[in-house]
Amino acid sequence: MWHQTTFQLSAKPRGFHLITEEVLQHIPEIATLSIGLVTLFIQHTSASLSINENADPTVRSDLEAHFNRNAPERAPYYRHIYEGDDDMPAHIKTATLGCSLTIPITNGRLALGTWQGVYLGEHRDYGGSRTLVATIHGE
Amino acid sequence: MWHQTTFQLSAKPRGFHLITEEVLQHIPEIATLSIGLVTLFIQHTSASLSINENADPTVRSDLEAHFNRNAPERAPYYRHIYEGDDDMPAHIKTATLGCSLTIPITNGRLALGTWQGVYLGEHRDYGGSRTLVATIHGE
Amino acid sequence: MWHQTTFQLSAKPRGFHLITEEVLQHIPEIATLSIGLVTLFIQHTSASLSINENADPTVRSDLEAHFNRNAPERAPYYRHIYEGDDDMPAHIKTATLGCSLTIPITNGRLALGTWQGVYLGEHRDYGGSRTLVATIHGE
Repeated sequence: MWHQTTFQLSAKPRGFHLITEEVLQHIPEIATLSIGLVTLFIQHTSASLSINENADPTVRSDLEAHFNRNAPERAPYYRHIYEGDDDMPAHIKTATLGCSLTIPITNGRLALGTWQGVYLGEHRDYGGSRTLVATIHGE
Repeated sequence: MWHQTTFQLSAKPRGFHLITEEVLQHIPEIATLSIGLVTLFIQHTSASLSINENADPTVRSDLEAHFNRNAPERAPYYRHIYEGDDDMPAHIKTATLGCSLTIPITNGRLALGTWQGVYLGEHRDYGGSRTLVATIHGE
Repeated sequence: MWHQTTFQLSAKPRGFHLITEEVLQHIPEIATLSIGLVTLFIQHTSASLSINENADPTVRSDLEAHFNRNAPERAPYYRHIYEGDDDMPAHIKTATLGCSLTIPITNGRLALGTWQGVYLGEHRDYGGSRTLVATIHGE
């Protein structure tokens, strides 16, 4: 069984956001699979997908603080500067964190660990709504 | 053909570890496939999966040295601090390195390059045994 | 339908390179699929695959500038030094950026966003031609 759907996340402010439930609303088909995989792919170069702790929100704010230092705004060696101070750092963060996730499906559910959740990294100040492609297959 | 198995790695000290052989012991089913993929997924937010050199062990210790500087303990801006000094750096390292790998299968074997091996990044001082989900499909 | 092919990219200088078209030449089979996935896997530990902006080439040179600072040559704590100054940084960059991509296929085409392209990160000064394994499946 193959299923694919393209959908938009609601617009979010810059930072890391727990989106597991928002994503699941768009892929009810996973409930029909005993074994499978879902691949989530974000069609942007300034926002990322990753997996991290689903409990304490300070993990998200600390990740934002870390990556703001790791990929600072206005680094003197940037040449790609005409789309705003947040643009080149957003490309670096997306390269570092990645733009897709492949998550196993077991008995109709995502096989996430107890503490794992899906994160959107919104790396622009005003990124707007972001488009994801979810591809599901299994049996 | 789909096959999925969940298994635990033996507990390992903090650092990077070559786990190709330990993983292969749990997925003998790949031998039956001429073309396919295996997706390895670690169900934790403080340990990572990556691929790097399978030969010189100083690559592993240098990666540990690099990421300890890239994601330092006790950074003054961390707010997620109550699980230990090694906890927030472990979340950052996992975000940076990733929690899953998809590796091609060719003629019954992982299609790794000559120098490639699968790495566990154990980012906690005492992480204990780690749980992996391996999903195999192919023909 | 499963299809797998192993091919070489032309040798490229150190830096980030847009390789979407070069890759597509090797996987014409995607045109036959309405829904599917392609997994690109690079069989090396000193070159990476990522997705980023396909338009302004200064994104590529700024990424090179960033990662050269993030993973510097001749860091005093490196012990893996006998393969050249560019070698251990190349392993770090590959760990950070990743060695595989899974991209959805929709109606016979890669479902990349408008501004997305596939990047080779060539992290050695003289890396030579690099080998990729492309695995395609879908319906």
